[in-house]
Amino acid sequence: MTSDSEIMKPVGIFDSGVGGLTVLKALRERLPNEDFVYLGDTARLPYGTKSATSILRYARQAARHLKLRDIKLLVIACNTASAVALLELQEELAPLPVIGVVKPGAFAAVEACPAGRHLVLATEATVNLHAYGDAIRSLDEAADVRELPCELLVALAEEGWTKGEIAEGIVREYLHPFFAAEQSRPDSIILGCTHFPILRPAIRAVAGDGTRIIDSAGTTATAVEELLRSHGLVREEPGSDGRSGLELLATDGARRFARVGGTFLGTALVAADVRIVDL
Amino acid sequence: MTSDSEIMKPVGIFDSGVGGLTVLKALRERLPNEDFVYLGDTARLPYGTKSATSILRYARQAARHLKLRDIKLLVIACNTASAVALLELQEELAPLPVIGVVKPGAFAAVEACPAGRHLVLATEATVNLHAYGDAIRSLDEAADVRELPCELLVALAEEGWTKGEIAEGIVREYLHPFFAAEQSRPDSIILGCTHFPILRPAIRAVAGDGTRIIDSAGTTATAVEELLRSHGLVREEPGSDGRSGLELLATDGARRFARVGGTFLGTALVAADVRIVDL
Repeated sequence: MTSDSEIMKPVGIFDSGVGGLTVLKALRERLPNEDFVYLGDTARLPYGTKSATSILRYARQAARHLKLRDIKLLVIACNTASAVALLELQEELAPLPVIGVVKPGAFAAVEACPAGRHLVLATEATVNLHAYGDAIRSLDEAADVRELPCELLVALAEEGWTKGEIAEGIVREYLHPFFAAEQSRPDSIILGCTHFPILRPAIRAVAGDGTRIIDSAGTTATAVEELLRSHGLVREEPGSDGRSGLELLATDGARRFARVGGTFLGTALVAADVRIVDL
Repeated sequence: MTSDSEIMKPVGIFDSGVGGLTVLKALRERLPNEDFVYLGDTARLPYGTKSATSILRYARQAARHLKLRDIKLLVIACNTASAVALLELQEELAPLPVIGVVKPGAFAAVEACPAGRHLVLATEATVNLHAYGDAIRSLDEAADVRELPCELLVALAEEGWTKGEIAEGIVREYLHPFFAAEQSRPDSIILGCTHFPILRPAIRAVAGDGTRIIDSAGTTATAVEELLRSHGLVREEPGSDGRSGLELLATDGARRFARVGGTFLGTALVAADVRIVDL
């Protein structure tokens, strides 16, 4: 049986920066009684253009830091880190449950479009590892998966230029080859980077209504709930003050984290909400 | 008197990534007999969105690494690192001569447009420190300087989308407020980030012919030559094989460094040209 003190521990979430706050947002909606501690490795972001060796090293340091904070489950809320480091972290941190965002995203895509044509928008590192392609095909042999690195979308989201002509022009430049012929249009576009959900309106405008847009935040929250439940770790009551707790940690730049992160979390943040830690 | 062995040492150049290769290109043209060792801190790029504390730490590690390689002069070929770390590195590495790119860029702007209106395009960190504003006003009290953070231009240059509608659209979005009224148009646009020279055609298309575009690569090369000459360190003859040497070091991702870096250096590179080092 799980002890009460285990249940009261926070859920740890780790990302390369602020993009993972889209996953945190979905988690807080799904699991309103849980405490969360979020760590963004802003000193070394972005991960998407770095080598697997560096990404694995950074992910390990972040995971160890969160483990020391006595979490009950770790969410790797960064697609690139999930693609590179999930298995290693599951092994290294066992018996702590560790979950990534790639498999929940792949599951959502296969459920929405069985035997479908999927287009994965992701970072260079995630694409190079074929993380989504492998995950989708392991769930659905009939699926057709194409993976496209879209680094400029990360910068676009960070700059907050998420709507209008420029955002749509950049999205169109990336998507055009896949939408040129009617018979090869994707059935689903998978947002394979946690920065991309805030670009959904621009992607919708370019892709039109015939393509599903899949975001792993919601399915990751569902998967986290199931995993917590299977371990008897779901917190059914709010804290003594009636609110769940949230601790935000970053490795650099509290002011920028607050400014850019507020867009992703969907709630205003100030620098004082963010504590800087050294990994 | 300077010994021959001193003269034969390479010039060290350090940047956060590949952008500084535009400076290296100008240096090789200006000083064809010198050997160069270039270090790009690709494991932690970009510097432009990080805090001054982190940038200073990274710059120190890179500079120490190059000093151990027995260089005769250090060029900080990154505007952000120059803005943050020049004085500290000059002090720490003395008597090794250390030069940044901000002052040469400011000098070029003041020379081109005395008592002019200058618009500096730079990273967030460079703008926050007002590095160009201070440098220009110290040379020309009558100068009017405005500084604009343009993070998306860094990503645009890295993605290689340097021409056409998207590049011009993004540049127009940044520049529009400064070009809306004829009487407040800048006399000069200063490319305050080493990524930006490859965006010159798009910037020219938006700014029109009435504005000078200032790039610190050429004036930095001139300043390096003068500094070497004042120390009696200029190499007047090529190496024994008639060619000058070039060593390329990076902290991560040789393949990406070669692919993206080739655009900046203006010559094709392959991954085997780049050695990975740990700082």
